Amino acid sequence: MTVRVGVIGAGWIGTEHIRRLTHTVTGARVTAVTDLDADRAARAAGPVGARVLPDGAAVVAAGDVDAVLVTSWGPTHAGHVLAAVAAGKPVFCEKPLATTAEDCLRIVEAEQARGRRLVQVGFMRRYDAGYRQLKEVIDAGRIGTPLIVHCAHRNPGVPDTYTSDMAALDTAVHEVDVLRWLLDDEIVSAQVVLPRATRHRAAHLKDPQIMLFETAKGVRIDLEVFVNCRYGYDIQCEAVGEEGLARLPDPAAVAVRGAGQHTTPVPTDWVARFQDAFDTEFREWIAGIAAGEAPTGPSAWDGYAATAITTATVEALNSGAVVTTDLKPRPAFYGGAA
Amino acid sequence: MTVRVGVIGAGWIGTEHIRRLTHTVTGARVTAVTDLDADRAARAAGPVGARVLPDGAAVVAAGDVDAVLVTSWGPTHAGHVLAAVAAGKPVFCEKPLATTAEDCLRIVEAEQARGRRLVQVGFMRRYDAGYRQLKEVIDAGRIGTPLIVHCAHRNPGVPDTYTSDMAALDTAVHEVDVLRWLLDDEIVSAQVVLPRATRHRAAHLKDPQIMLFETAKGVRIDLEVFVNCRYGYDIQCEAVGEEGLARLPDPAAVAVRGAGQHTTPVPTDWVARFQDAFDTEFREWIAGIAAGEAPTGPSAWDGYAATAITTATVEALNSGAVVTTDLKPRPAFYGGAA
Amino acid sequence: MTVRVGVIGAGWIGTEHIRRLTHTVTGARVTAVTDLDADRAARAAGPVGARVLPDGAAVVAAGDVDAVLVTSWGPTHAGHVLAAVAAGKPVFCEKPLATTAEDCLRIVEAEQARGRRLVQVGFMRRYDAGYRQLKEVIDAGRIGTPLIVHCAHRNPGVPDTYTSDMAALDTAVHEVDVLRWLLDDEIVSAQVVLPRATRHRAAHLKDPQIMLFETAKGVRIDLEVFVNCRYGYDIQCEAVGEEGLARLPDPAAVAVRGAGQHTTPVPTDWVARFQDAFDTEFREWIAGIAAGEAPTGPSAWDGYAATAITTATVEALNSGAVVTTDLKPRPAFYGGAA
Amino acid sequence: MTVRVGVIGAGWIGTEHIRRLTHTVTGARVTAVTDLDADRAARAAGPVGARVLPDGAAVVAAGDVDAVLVTSWGPTHAGHVLAAVAAGKPVFCEKPLATTAEDCLRIVEAEQARGRRLVQVGFMRRYDAGYRQLKEVIDAGRIGTPLIVHCAHRNPGVPDTYTSDMAALDTAVHEVDVLRWLLDDEIVSAQVVLPRATRHRAAHLKDPQIMLFETAKGVRIDLEVFVNCRYGYDIQCEAVGEEGLARLPDPAAVAVRGAGQHTTPVPTDWVARFQDAFDTEFREWIAGIAAGEAPTGPSAWDGYAATAITTATVEALNSGAVVTTDLKPRPAFYGGAA
Repeated sequence: MTVRVGVIGAGWIGTEHIRRLTHTVTGARVTAVTDLDADRAARAAGPVGARVLPDGAAVVAAGDVDAVLVTSWGPTHAGHVLAAVAAGKPVFCEKPLATTAEDCLRIVEAEQARGRRLVQVGFMRRYDAGYRQLKEVIDAGRIGTPLIVHCAHRNPGVPDTYTSDMAALDTAVHEVDVLRWLLDDEIVSAQVVLPRATRHRAAHLKDPQIMLFETAKGVRIDLEVFVNCRYGYDIQCEAVGEEGLARLPDPAAVAVRGAGQHTTPVPTDWVARFQDAFDTEFREWIAGIAAGEAPTGPSAWDGYAATAITTATVEALNSGAVVTTDLKPRPAFYGGAA
Repeated sequence: MTVRVGVIGAGWIGTEHIRRLTHTVTGARVTAVTDLDADRAARAAGPVGARVLPDGAAVVAAGDVDAVLVTSWGPTHAGHVLAAVAAGKPVFCEKPLATTAEDCLRIVEAEQARGRRLVQVGFMRRYDAGYRQLKEVIDAGRIGTPLIVHCAHRNPGVPDTYTSDMAALDTAVHEVDVLRWLLDDEIVSAQVVLPRATRHRAAHLKDPQIMLFETAKGVRIDLEVFVNCRYGYDIQCEAVGEEGLARLPDPAAVAVRGAGQHTTPVPTDWVARFQDAFDTEFREWIAGIAAGEAPTGPSAWDGYAATAITTATVEALNSGAVVTTDLKPRPAFYGGAA
Repeated sequence: MTVRVGVIGAGWIGTEHIRRLTHTVTGARVTAVTDLDADRAARAAGPVGARVLPDGAAVVAAGDVDAVLVTSWGPTHAGHVLAAVAAGKPVFCEKPLATTAEDCLRIVEAEQARGRRLVQVGFMRRYDAGYRQLKEVIDAGRIGTPLIVHCAHRNPGVPDTYTSDMAALDTAVHEVDVLRWLLDDEIVSAQVVLPRATRHRAAHLKDPQIMLFETAKGVRIDLEVFVNCRYGYDIQCEAVGEEGLARLPDPAAVAVRGAGQHTTPVPTDWVARFQDAFDTEFREWIAGIAAGEAPTGPSAWDGYAATAITTATVEALNSGAVVTTDLKPRPAFYGGAA
Repeated sequence: MTVRVGVIGAGWIGTEHIRRLTHTVTGARVTAVTDLDADRAARAAGPVGARVLPDGAAVVAAGDVDAVLVTSWGPTHAGHVLAAVAAGKPVFCEKPLATTAEDCLRIVEAEQARGRRLVQVGFMRRYDAGYRQLKEVIDAGRIGTPLIVHCAHRNPGVPDTYTSDMAALDTAVHEVDVLRWLLDDEIVSAQVVLPRATRHRAAHLKDPQIMLFETAKGVRIDLEVFVNCRYGYDIQCEAVGEEGLARLPDPAAVAVRGAGQHTTPVPTDWVARFQDAFDTEFREWIAGIAAGEAPTGPSAWDGYAATAITTATVEALNSGAVVTTDLKPRPAFYGGAA
């Protein structure tokens, strides 16, 4: 069975996923594309033989669309996802699931009302080989009960449109999701401390930021977010437990010795760094749909938690205080206790 | 366009490639399978909806076969490849191309007579990300003119049926191909020196072996082949040039600190080590065929060189002497000087 | 000229330094030893041909004592150091210089009154080859202006007598000193956050602790102190600047591949980890005295700062609040601005 | 007891060792110095308060010389060592012990006739912390029975006076000694293969060279000697055994991430690389003499073996053949079987 995918939003990431679903992932075909900019939709749809549809509602409704991919502008996500859920179609939504916790909860309720999992949120790190090894090591008990996680998320630079709250909402959100999954735990509070700012930032930007999270089980997470670090795209994660520690590997790279130095390259591009993770993410999503199984990736609940936690982090940034995340109890539908 | 592939030989590697062409590589479909053991063919063909055909000739001739994959027993390779060439169909042949240099040359001549490249030989290392980075580094001149390459090819163990000449024919053959490609150079002589044998070998087996190769440009290669090294599947390659050196990376792996030790896993399984390389190999092969292009992977000439060089290495092992490989001049058809 | 050293305190560290001054460092001789336990003093003095004196005052006053080494119980340090300063003799005091900031300031004032530097405090990390390389890299501008430092100080275990405030006073004090020196900056506030405690601690102990420091220039430091980490003695330090980062190396160690793993040892013993640093520390101290130069190592001011900052850190631990260190302005005598 | 050392030869290495014995090693004092160039002797002797003596015989005979250090021109070594042995004084001789195997044997015989070990040869690698760890790992059986050792000895460059035979006599001689010790085994044959020569060599020089050794127990050693490698001073050693492998560590060094690269420095200077080994070598030598013990470092027999093996290696270089080393049986006096 080939899964026929309809794509809402043909910007950079939408186009990239259309290419991925067409040329990299087996068992999928993009059959419909829409975008506010119809020309852009046409440019994305043409090479893969998909139709251009007038809007998201048409994509969701289309008879030749088995599953929906939402890659439109963030504030529109919730509406498209709710429509897909209402139609009973599997829907993959790039992060954020919605820009407010309330909208996320609306999706969570709709999905529960529908009675089965349909929504997956695009947190690709869970599909990265390194993070998966890290989770295996933790789950196998090799470091004992986790106590602390040290993380860094560094980008070489950002455009001037990048604002201080995006450090949490757009950047740290990846760690927020992957750490909840790695630790099988929930984040209950956030604090942000501000080091001296780098001279390589826009004047309005607080960069770097150090975010401190506490989990329900008492794990402390420190996360350096540094989006103008200049030297590369560098993702670090080290989990410290009662018996030892485990560290996310750097990507394998040829070492060169020359002119008095032993040198390995550091990635400079997040797309390259997580290329394989994106591929695996979509491969598993499509395979699951083809097999008629519920998605196993980040759920609507995970999308809700990510939005709620990063929103609290922005509040912590602005207030200087420790802010509790005040998450709702996780419903049994999503594997919760109640 | 979907490339329809006919598979000759449904053993372990054939079945693995059928799975790969069906579930991992886009743009391909396995339509026909044959094997000496018809039940085995049926078990491989069934799940992917392919027909079982009585023999290789039938596969090559089938109207719904655009390209042929030869994964049968080594001594039968040449016949199947020659048939595919005669039919003008692209053919991917697992190594060896043929078990004798003479048979390889017969294929080389047939392909030239046909007037275009149809044959690709299954040396997957050229598709490994690490080797590709290594080639980029060398080609970019970062280590200057290469002078020496140090290699190791270690397997945790081999079955008792593994014989001393297989160290060259089955094991070192991968380095022979990848080094010719890395260095853009030809191997002109081989010598084998024998260390003390490990107690973990079968009594009939010379293991480890150190193979010494010289290239036309004067590069010296030392290759440790150790197929009962116990501790893992470990592939090492370090190229030393006039300005510096470059080293093949180990696979990225989570590091764990526990009980007084910093530990990373060493692969124990060659399939896992080169899984991605196999995927890329077939992805590029299928994409080339779909685009109507000649294959860019290891050619029939490379298959000839590999067989001739490893045969000379076996002679070196048996004689204790330095043996010249006496390769024919490379035809212009294969990018040679003449 | 041989520097004649009188040692006050013949416990483990005193005995270790007597051995060091006798057998490892050239140009020094231990001539007098005292200890509250006269037998212990005799056991330490005998093998090196030193006299046993009744108390610290006698050691300071002795005609054959050119320089004083204070390795007695912490609360007695200030008295011995003040006596040595009063006598105009160079004095090396193991940390802490004094157990209260007030006592430290009394020494600082006495030394200034005396008109030349006589006091050195035993923070050996400034003599570790790795930290020295790290300082060279930072001072050379290779990472640009420092913004953040991530540190970890892990011990495999501690005795039951180790209390929660010792995490700052005895353990983190080493980072406090070495970071002030690395960054050429002052620590202005401290905060402590508490992860879930390890089950391998004594019931009364808060372990691990995460300490957060801010410097006068706005650098943020996070320091994990984990004294029951089990797996080893592990000191990590990574400085992040505007242009890049630099990382303290792990000690060089033979790597072993066996049984599917690549393994290097992690130190388990702080004495072994900083053995060379101790040697260099005393070599430079003795050489300076022999040359009639003022000490260049950690000064009385550094000793004051360390005590004041770690005391504030204990307050932060107990209060849960951010505590300012309220250091006095650094006198010009100690290289300060005023 | 202070060991009074007389030094024969005040060139660069002699002066360096005089400094070491005076300022770094405890328990020693240089009391007498001689050199063919009396001014040079005076410049070396003056700062340490030693006498200048007219020749080596005078140094050996001097009443205030307990032990002799021979750092003169290689061809004069044997004479000075024989004189010291005749005088019954401990003698440390920089490599080579003598420039011919015959002269080495003469020393061996003289020492045996004298009835106790007096001679130590200056192979400092046995005192390098990394090699010592490597020996511990091997001796502890962690890699099982050794089968193969891969080595590289690379220098950034050499003066024009460096000749092709010096690759064995002056450079590889260090590996020859340290491998005999690491493996507790003897080298029985040598072969040299020549890669394409680097353009960065003098016209008369064969560089790099690959030396292949076989030991009595059947271990195969390959050693790349590359003295114009440009990029650094790089010493590599990897021992492969029946159960695993062990690798000499690179020196610990601060890693810097900047401009897309993770970088650690490679040493460029052999003096810096083996500084600590030299210090330990002399510390143990002096301590042994002070304790009235026979030297435990490289013996006259080791000096003989090194000269005999490297001489055979030069013959192998010149002939292109495998050359046996034809060592005499090791006398029981030196721990031999007979």
